[in-house]
Amino acid sequence: MRHWKKILIPYEQAVEELKVKFKAIRNELREISEYSPIEFVTGRVKKVSSILEKAKKYGFAENEIEEKIEDIAGIRIMCQFVDDIYKVVELIEQRDGKDLKIVYVKDYIKNRKESGYRSYHMIIKYPIQTAFGNKEILAEIQIRTLAMNFWATIEHSINYKYKKNVPEPIKERLKKSAEAAYHLDKEMWEIRHEVINAQKLFEIKSNT
Amino acid sequence: MRHWKKILIPYEQAVEELKVKFKAIRNELREISEYSPIEFVTGRVKKVSSILEKAKKYGFAENEIEEKIEDIAGIRIMCQFVDDIYKVVELIEQRDGKDLKIVYVKDYIKNRKESGYRSYHMIIKYPIQTAFGNKEILAEIQIRTLAMNFWATIEHSINYKYKKNVPEPIKERLKKSAEAAYHLDKEMWEIRHEVINAQKLFEIKSNT
Amino acid sequence: MRHWKKILIPYEQAVEELKVKFKAIRNELREISEYSPIEFVTGRVKKVSSILEKAKKYGFAENEIEEKIEDIAGIRIMCQFVDDIYKVVELIEQRDGKDLKIVYVKDYIKNRKESGYRSYHMIIKYPIQTAFGNKEILAEIQIRTLAMNFWATIEHSINYKYKKNVPEPIKERLKKSAEAAYHLDKEMWEIRHEVINAQKLFEIKSNT
Amino acid sequence: MRHWKKILIPYEQAVEELKVKFKAIRNELREISEYSPIEFVTGRVKKVSSILEKAKKYGFAENEIEEKIEDIAGIRIMCQFVDDIYKVVELIEQRDGKDLKIVYVKDYIKNRKESGYRSYHMIIKYPIQTAFGNKEILAEIQIRTLAMNFWATIEHSINYKYKKNVPEPIKERLKKSAEAAYHLDKEMWEIRHEVINAQKLFEIKSNT
Repeated sequence: MRHWKKILIPYEQAVEELKVKFKAIRNELREISEYSPIEFVTGRVKKVSSILEKAKKYGFAENEIEEKIEDIAGIRIMCQFVDDIYKVVELIEQRDGKDLKIVYVKDYIKNRKESGYRSYHMIIKYPIQTAFGNKEILAEIQIRTLAMNFWATIEHSINYKYKKNVPEPIKERLKKSAEAAYHLDKEMWEIRHEVINAQKLFEIKSNT
Repeated sequence: MRHWKKILIPYEQAVEELKVKFKAIRNELREISEYSPIEFVTGRVKKVSSILEKAKKYGFAENEIEEKIEDIAGIRIMCQFVDDIYKVVELIEQRDGKDLKIVYVKDYIKNRKESGYRSYHMIIKYPIQTAFGNKEILAEIQIRTLAMNFWATIEHSINYKYKKNVPEPIKERLKKSAEAAYHLDKEMWEIRHEVINAQKLFEIKSNT
Repeated sequence: MRHWKKILIPYEQAVEELKVKFKAIRNELREISEYSPIEFVTGRVKKVSSILEKAKKYGFAENEIEEKIEDIAGIRIMCQFVDDIYKVVELIEQRDGKDLKIVYVKDYIKNRKESGYRSYHMIIKYPIQTAFGNKEILAEIQIRTLAMNFWATIEHSINYKYKKNVPEPIKERLKKSAEAAYHLDKEMWEIRHEVINAQKLFEIKSNT
Repeated sequence: MRHWKKILIPYEQAVEELKVKFKAIRNELREISEYSPIEFVTGRVKKVSSILEKAKKYGFAENEIEEKIEDIAGIRIMCQFVDDIYKVVELIEQRDGKDLKIVYVKDYIKNRKESGYRSYHMIIKYPIQTAFGNKEILAEIQIRTLAMNFWATIEHSINYKYKKNVPEPIKERLKKSAEAAYHLDKEMWEIRHEVINAQKLFEIKSNT
């Protein structure tokens, strides 16, 4: 465990830096009275116990873990509207080759998972400077609406409890709540132009 | 304005203290592997411009403002499930007469507003110590689910834009999205026992 | 250990609340362009291993620990000048019986320790509200100048290393550096009126 | 002013990122039980009023300001011992051409200023990504001991008050206190090996 704590130090650093950077986009846009597609940003480093569990499940050797487990460093970006997700994706694509490299993406919004899961995932490489030289860190960025995030948190808890053997009736309930979350996103989408204009106006006034 | 900045200092302090206190409940329960009805907590002091606008609208004299405007200090507590809101209310009621006093409450969940607004409001008095002696501050605590909060934020922006004269078609859209938020809360409510048990389990494991 | 983690939760909460409260004094005074005797504030909860070590050393039974070890919750207030320490003491005395109770004080500035240690200690009782009712927490507040703090940190590391059996030549060096720290405080004291007036002026300008 | 607020956004971002990065060095070294030459890190963006004052004083046109005023973004790194300053300088030199570029340095420790001022300054260029593309920001890193910092803060207040026309007797007092600060650093330097070893030991124990 002690050994792993040491390995995870650069991941902590990458998560801290990426959080600061994505929050800066939001602050920058609000300061100049532009609508920000980013509502808020969180980040975490995977727990050692979860890393070892995942490695065991997929049969990764210990020395393969850093290269094969792509979400040891995880960033989550929450948006108000579904369209905002794609604006955030664009902002990240513009940085490709600058302060980060995009490895690949998975669009679980256009291709919703069987379970009802929706989210946009980007796997990136991010360079950091440590006291012992530079190192490139793999990180996963999840981009979601607030409703997608709420549902995903709940699904995660239930999967965790049943170790993936979720009983059929609970699976059904989960799907119904996924539908409700999807429906909320759709309703919000219909009203988004009103809201975006209103929020830009709001920032203008607050800044004067 | 300068003068108002000075008046607001104790409100800033009250908000900071109350945020620390409500976050502590969450941390305490999670640490002992109990489910926390509090998901997260935010707080803000009303902007001077908004205070003066509200005073003008209701015809309050300047020296009445601190006593008549009850939400200069505002705390918002977000919950996963509707039931959690009432558990939080109970926790606050237990402190009544200790570190705070409840002035009155408004239950806009049982009595939803015409607009679709749902939320539980508590107006409290909170004593603080300043460099010049003690002072009692009025504060408003809003307790909501994540879906209620999402909707309320959006309604607030739109009201702000139209200065309360929201056009009828947009009002209709807002009501439909309020319905969708309500429906999501209902679906989540159906699954809550599963989730609460799963999350307690999750905390137990994380803490071992 | 797990058991102790649980016992320490209210101490964490007390430290958080006290930090917010003492920082508020500083912010309040600076906001109104008054000189603040508080430069910065830190806090910590004693480590479980250190608590158990101390209990063993003094022969406290486990159930006596919370009542006999007075610095499980620790707050440190740093000041620019020696006089500021006594202004902070006064500010705390004014709150006695309000949001905290002073148990006793030790003035190691007027009565410097043999080792060269200087600092003002206040032992207080602080009431907190937990999810299971209220509880009174013992806490130690240390009030020091920056120079006193610098020296004390270094003495602490060395004592820790030698488990109190510090070799004579190192003890001598420590005393000489304590002298140097004392001398710096004295020189600063001579210039303090200039600085205090200058800093008040600085705040006035920054706030306009 | 509004216009300037917008110009300063990328500087805010650079300061945030650099603070996270230098704090990471400290955390990394402590986590692996190595002595950290960095004690703590602060940062600030120069106030608009101070920027305009400086521009006026040196006769810079508005469009020259970003290129000529090198300390709009400022980072301050505090060390326990004078030697630590040079270890920090080395750590920064190792990053030259990676995540930052060193423009030039000024060693006011080896070449103390007439006033008594001691500190190590590095002017760097730091690239950031904004919502509108990348931008290179000038920043000043000041590296100092705690005693140097204490004295410099006080000198700054006094210079500010007298707008650089500090009366002769106060100048003399300032020099005497600079001597006292220097003397404290020298005494601490004599004891530093003891302390460094003790602190490494301390981290080892805390981490086990």
